[in-house]
Amino acid sequence: MNLQDLNGSRLLMAASGGLDSCTITHWLTWHGVEVVAYTADLGQPDEEDMDDVRERMLACGAREMILADLRPEIAEAGFQLLRCGARYEGGYWNTTGIARHVVVAGMVPEMERRGITLLSHGATGRGNDQVRFELAAQMLSPGLRVYAPWRDPAFLEAFGGRREMIEYCQAHGLPVKATLEKPYSTDANVLGLTHEAGELESLETSPALVEPGMGVFPARAPDEARVVEVRFEEGRPVALDRTALEGFDMMRAANEVAGAHGVGIGLHAVENRFVGLKSRGVYEAPGLELLGQCYEYLLQLVLDRRSRRCHSQVSGWIAEQVYQGYWFDTATQACRAFVDHLARLATGTIRVSLYKGTVQFASAADVPHSLYREDAASMEAVGDFDHRDSTGFLGVLGVSARILSQADQIER
Amino acid sequence: MNLQDLNGSRLLMAASGGLDSCTITHWLTWHGVEVVAYTADLGQPDEEDMDDVRERMLACGAREMILADLRPEIAEAGFQLLRCGARYEGGYWNTTGIARHVVVAGMVPEMERRGITLLSHGATGRGNDQVRFELAAQMLSPGLRVYAPWRDPAFLEAFGGRREMIEYCQAHGLPVKATLEKPYSTDANVLGLTHEAGELESLETSPALVEPGMGVFPARAPDEARVVEVRFEEGRPVALDRTALEGFDMMRAANEVAGAHGVGIGLHAVENRFVGLKSRGVYEAPGLELLGQCYEYLLQLVLDRRSRRCHSQVSGWIAEQVYQGYWFDTATQACRAFVDHLARLATGTIRVSLYKGTVQFASAADVPHSLYREDAASMEAVGDFDHRDSTGFLGVLGVSARILSQADQIER
Amino acid sequence: MNLQDLNGSRLLMAASGGLDSCTITHWLTWHGVEVVAYTADLGQPDEEDMDDVRERMLACGAREMILADLRPEIAEAGFQLLRCGARYEGGYWNTTGIARHVVVAGMVPEMERRGITLLSHGATGRGNDQVRFELAAQMLSPGLRVYAPWRDPAFLEAFGGRREMIEYCQAHGLPVKATLEKPYSTDANVLGLTHEAGELESLETSPALVEPGMGVFPARAPDEARVVEVRFEEGRPVALDRTALEGFDMMRAANEVAGAHGVGIGLHAVENRFVGLKSRGVYEAPGLELLGQCYEYLLQLVLDRRSRRCHSQVSGWIAEQVYQGYWFDTATQACRAFVDHLARLATGTIRVSLYKGTVQFASAADVPHSLYREDAASMEAVGDFDHRDSTGFLGVLGVSARILSQADQIER
Amino acid sequence: MNLQDLNGSRLLMAASGGLDSCTITHWLTWHGVEVVAYTADLGQPDEEDMDDVRERMLACGAREMILADLRPEIAEAGFQLLRCGARYEGGYWNTTGIARHVVVAGMVPEMERRGITLLSHGATGRGNDQVRFELAAQMLSPGLRVYAPWRDPAFLEAFGGRREMIEYCQAHGLPVKATLEKPYSTDANVLGLTHEAGELESLETSPALVEPGMGVFPARAPDEARVVEVRFEEGRPVALDRTALEGFDMMRAANEVAGAHGVGIGLHAVENRFVGLKSRGVYEAPGLELLGQCYEYLLQLVLDRRSRRCHSQVSGWIAEQVYQGYWFDTATQACRAFVDHLARLATGTIRVSLYKGTVQFASAADVPHSLYREDAASMEAVGDFDHRDSTGFLGVLGVSARILSQADQIER
Repeated sequence: MNLQDLNGSRLLMAASGGLDSCTITHWLTWHGVEVVAYTADLGQPDEEDMDDVRERMLACGAREMILADLRPEIAEAGFQLLRCGARYEGGYWNTTGIARHVVVAGMVPEMERRGITLLSHGATGRGNDQVRFELAAQMLSPGLRVYAPWRDPAFLEAFGGRREMIEYCQAHGLPVKATLEKPYSTDANVLGLTHEAGELESLETSPALVEPGMGVFPARAPDEARVVEVRFEEGRPVALDRTALEGFDMMRAANEVAGAHGVGIGLHAVENRFVGLKSRGVYEAPGLELLGQCYEYLLQLVLDRRSRRCHSQVSGWIAEQVYQGYWFDTATQACRAFVDHLARLATGTIRVSLYKGTVQFASAADVPHSLYREDAASMEAVGDFDHRDSTGFLGVLGVSARILSQADQIER
Repeated sequence: MNLQDLNGSRLLMAASGGLDSCTITHWLTWHGVEVVAYTADLGQPDEEDMDDVRERMLACGAREMILADLRPEIAEAGFQLLRCGARYEGGYWNTTGIARHVVVAGMVPEMERRGITLLSHGATGRGNDQVRFELAAQMLSPGLRVYAPWRDPAFLEAFGGRREMIEYCQAHGLPVKATLEKPYSTDANVLGLTHEAGELESLETSPALVEPGMGVFPARAPDEARVVEVRFEEGRPVALDRTALEGFDMMRAANEVAGAHGVGIGLHAVENRFVGLKSRGVYEAPGLELLGQCYEYLLQLVLDRRSRRCHSQVSGWIAEQVYQGYWFDTATQACRAFVDHLARLATGTIRVSLYKGTVQFASAADVPHSLYREDAASMEAVGDFDHRDSTGFLGVLGVSARILSQADQIER
Repeated sequence: MNLQDLNGSRLLMAASGGLDSCTITHWLTWHGVEVVAYTADLGQPDEEDMDDVRERMLACGAREMILADLRPEIAEAGFQLLRCGARYEGGYWNTTGIARHVVVAGMVPEMERRGITLLSHGATGRGNDQVRFELAAQMLSPGLRVYAPWRDPAFLEAFGGRREMIEYCQAHGLPVKATLEKPYSTDANVLGLTHEAGELESLETSPALVEPGMGVFPARAPDEARVVEVRFEEGRPVALDRTALEGFDMMRAANEVAGAHGVGIGLHAVENRFVGLKSRGVYEAPGLELLGQCYEYLLQLVLDRRSRRCHSQVSGWIAEQVYQGYWFDTATQACRAFVDHLARLATGTIRVSLYKGTVQFASAADVPHSLYREDAASMEAVGDFDHRDSTGFLGVLGVSARILSQADQIER
Repeated sequence: MNLQDLNGSRLLMAASGGLDSCTITHWLTWHGVEVVAYTADLGQPDEEDMDDVRERMLACGAREMILADLRPEIAEAGFQLLRCGARYEGGYWNTTGIARHVVVAGMVPEMERRGITLLSHGATGRGNDQVRFELAAQMLSPGLRVYAPWRDPAFLEAFGGRREMIEYCQAHGLPVKATLEKPYSTDANVLGLTHEAGELESLETSPALVEPGMGVFPARAPDEARVVEVRFEEGRPVALDRTALEGFDMMRAANEVAGAHGVGIGLHAVENRFVGLKSRGVYEAPGLELLGQCYEYLLQLVLDRRSRRCHSQVSGWIAEQVYQGYWFDTATQACRAFVDHLARLATGTIRVSLYKGTVQFASAADVPHSLYREDAASMEAVGDFDHRDSTGFLGVLGVSARILSQADQIER
């Protein structure tokens, strides 16, 4: 969908209020498109005053400005990620990926309320975000269509890059916020920060280039360890250091304590984008990292070998689905039913020690579904387990081991 | 197989030379069993003088004492683990598990050479090691049978625990080495240490109880970060800080630098034993952790999304196989053919920074099969990737997204 | 647990009423064990008069005889299998495996009601059924213990085989039903028959040796095809040829029509038993085969690629769990939550044609969640899908294909 | 890539010699494009005289005509499919998918020889074949570009469908072969036929509409069963009914005997295309079905439970890769290394009985790596397996079953 298809349309545009948003809004309005701007408060740590954003967008020509408080929704989505154990390609917490879904889920009802059927976003044509915006939107509302200026030849011709946009804004007297250009770009919400592009594109550049926004690098963290206690109920964190906290407040508190100790700050990964390209990012997600490690320790207590094996596969599937824009997909929903079933077992209190970026298990308590039995774990002959049964156990296993060998299947 | 079945037999016994070995050797000899003792040098950091072990075992009645230098074999096995990415239940490096296979593979030819068909080990009836000893032995040589004193009622009656063994040794004038009893037990080889049992059985006990044997805890590590460079060729580490190193020397050097910075020291995990019990261990594997992180960074560059997804599943399978004593199993062999195929792509140099237990990516170079292309990764319109293609890409993906929604499969 | 441990105990014994049941009951009673016999009506096609069974068991010394009608439960379990798509090792319907769980679930409340804590079954020491009986029992009621005469040395010494049991019964005047000895043994319930052992153990023996009990071999089926229509609602078959049928009646009706046409009759498989041995069976499950094929056709319409991929993996896990006695296991429950989520989409009517053992798709109708769109499926340029989008789609995919090649990863 | 980008180029076009090929060739030539036509002999059952194809293509303006005998290559690819067990979405043999890769692998060297960098194919914009052509081409030769007339707006405007092409050919006096228009389209090679599109697009249409090209429907098959014996060596079929046969001859012979008995004829499936649409096809692959069933019976004998479980997952991955055009992909190569390792065990002779579309196991012989042991399989107390060991085996398993229950994880 390109500019020429838009004439006279009305669209809802995901807008951050920055240079891009201002330029696009004005340019579209100028070309006869009616722009309703939508800005979500996701609790991003660098959050600007929302009223300034409103004023700026309206000054750029937006017909209406919607400011949405999605802080409860993003926190809830973070808890879902946590419970699903959904780290992309086994590594980092995909905080940007999940946030796109949350924003779209916020936009769709606003569109329906206004009879708008066109959604616009400022994601580029090489990244994952365009995929997430568009798949999420069309799953939630199949009648929607999407306009992406960064894939529109008309827009691309007009604006090759940042410089042209700044000139455009100056020429039209648009109230662009004067920002120092950072050597990379950052996406932010209360769950985490994703830094990529710019100078980070070179693998020669160390991730240390990044200036952390949610804490400090390990080397700057205090010399004293800090013990933290997290309480989970049925797969949901409910208290931090014995203070009951919910949703957004929990995420913020977890970020604070973990970030201060360098936990989850500055993770580097080269990942496989949905469009098939490799890309490199540097990540911050202190709160999720802390809660996620604690949750992992809790799962080690309550999941037996078979549940564990299944859970780790389903986690991997969900992580890929989130990454690729399929959080609302049928398969994800079914996978979440699986995860939710096991999450009901995940009640307990975990204490960990935070030190210079590391999270070490300290102790566990009040885990009603724990399978860990000190007496059974013991190598000594105590408890329910009869050492002599193992002779039979191994007798049985040994028969098939020998048959494999007798059938000449084992290479030595 | 119990004592009464052994009369007059000859067996090869895996012996460490400690209290257990001495007691069992003497007790068996006393009951008419001919004991050949087998002790492997696996480069364990706390390694005792091998000649002392020999003398002691002979003094306890062993008919013959075999001292085997398996340092090249254990290092090679470590490299295989590394390449397979085989961390048990996604977590720690299973250095004890792989070592049992290496020892059995060393023992079997000695047995064949002497016509011995009975293998004995000192593993208890609740652990995984008994499984590994016995499955590995019967796969490599299906005619073997195994005698495990710790599952033999006669032995268990005679020796309830450590105290009875000490008394027995004193009564028989056996040259047991006076060791201070540690509050937990440790299994050691050049790949790593596994601490478990004793006081560690209580989840109230912090892993900090353990006294590290291959380095220091992060809090004791230097305040300065250390940059390390690892060179891999076809999935094998070949140089550390530009010094070419092979096998055992590589493992030792990697242990040294990583252990000094607290890397891979003191990992805690509650795991699912093969016999179905939960057990808790504290692990050290500094060299494998360092090399493993570097290898992971290298794989991030050379594996595309599809290879990655398959690789991470196959890794998980192998990890479980190693843990359960199936390293020589048909399935493991086939999985290793898969891994080896991809390992051929894993050539390159990775630099990381070690600091207080953390390993941070610094840079990568000379990776001929790298899929990372700075120009393609860029969000800017440069290189081979046409932003506008994404419109078609999303057009295609969007059709099925809408159909899912139209078919009323998406819950909002 | 052996005879000497039982003295004076009371146990609940799973009893079929045949030679084994009679012998064991009398022998146990004779040795001072109080036997309560439990026989379940599972709708087995060769079902005997239950009152005869009662009389016989009481005559053999049983203190009490419980006749349980588990026909609704076994049918329901069959529907669960169907929905899970749980064919063992991808092949046959594991009707015996699921039935053991159903029987145990029937026995446990009877035990609790009577304060009995000892369960006995007549499964042998090499098979899977002992595992299913015992794991299911201990999961449902962890205080239970199990006595298995076929693993008790005392019983094995007394009774080497069938001949000794017959002699024993004659000597004690027990009312054993005179049965012609079949050249193999059969386990039966309304879901299917499993034939194994005896002459079937030789791979030289063709499965054609078996005399079908739920239909005819394809060669004996009518020369005319028969069209059948099955209606599913939310993953459950609700009507056959437009007649609403529930539970047991549905299973019986499906068996009848499918068995008459040779469908699901006489499948041969060599499978991997839980104890690690290969075993060979010949299977009948006409109703499940018919319903299962129809369900598969329905799933082809409602599951997209991602759901499909996950579903087929989860199916495989469940199949293995059922086989190994883990139907009540935590992991199975979580997997079933996944399956149930997708099953809600499985509403529709499928018509198939049955002919000499084959089931051919005929047509589908009334599938509200169907993703099949005639217009979109068409290769012609109609409907919502723009052929030209594919150029962009392939442009995107092509970039990564070329990078793989440029990185020298592709062998030619 | 569209017509305007082609001017003066030279391209290699995959041509069948039918109406499409003639029209496209003439139309492109007319627009100044130099067409080299490439037709592969894949042993398709309805094969036309190749010299007629040559003459026709040259008459339509092709500058050169390449006739390639790829019968050995397609047969070999079929054997690879067989060994990989790669049935798409668990169902049918993807004979069309693999063939596209074979053709591209034939074309690429011809292009390189002539310095041609443009490949053209006649696949439409909604199907899978375009993906396979283009991904395979770019993997084998990243410098190639692809022109697809059925996605080129200029071509689509000129030719809406079949009628316009016929008129065009008549107007230009092109020697189009007069073919009766079939109510569906068919893709053919020696491995199988794929029928789709046209009237088959309606799910109301029974697959019985199709006229089989490689055999008969079951109802037309002989009333007598036919026993067939297949000999495999290391995962490759080497003899049929004791006649040694290789490659193409083996495929043809297997097709003949299986097709005559209705085996693998007329399978219906609704599948998930790569582009995300559902599509419906009717399939014939008699030879692969026969060989595949025999191979499956052989694998049942040689794969233990662990190998089996891994093998079935890897099979599924490969099937999806073939379907999506990734046969030459890195991941596929690694998966094939896994499969090849296990295939070395697959030596043996399998006899089956073919009857009216069914394949029944009859017997197996000469399987050196067979794990099936009649004595071990026996439920009787013979051989190496001690029934009493099972007591210990179950004792061990029971502990964890009870712990699950005691931890309140089991719902009743």
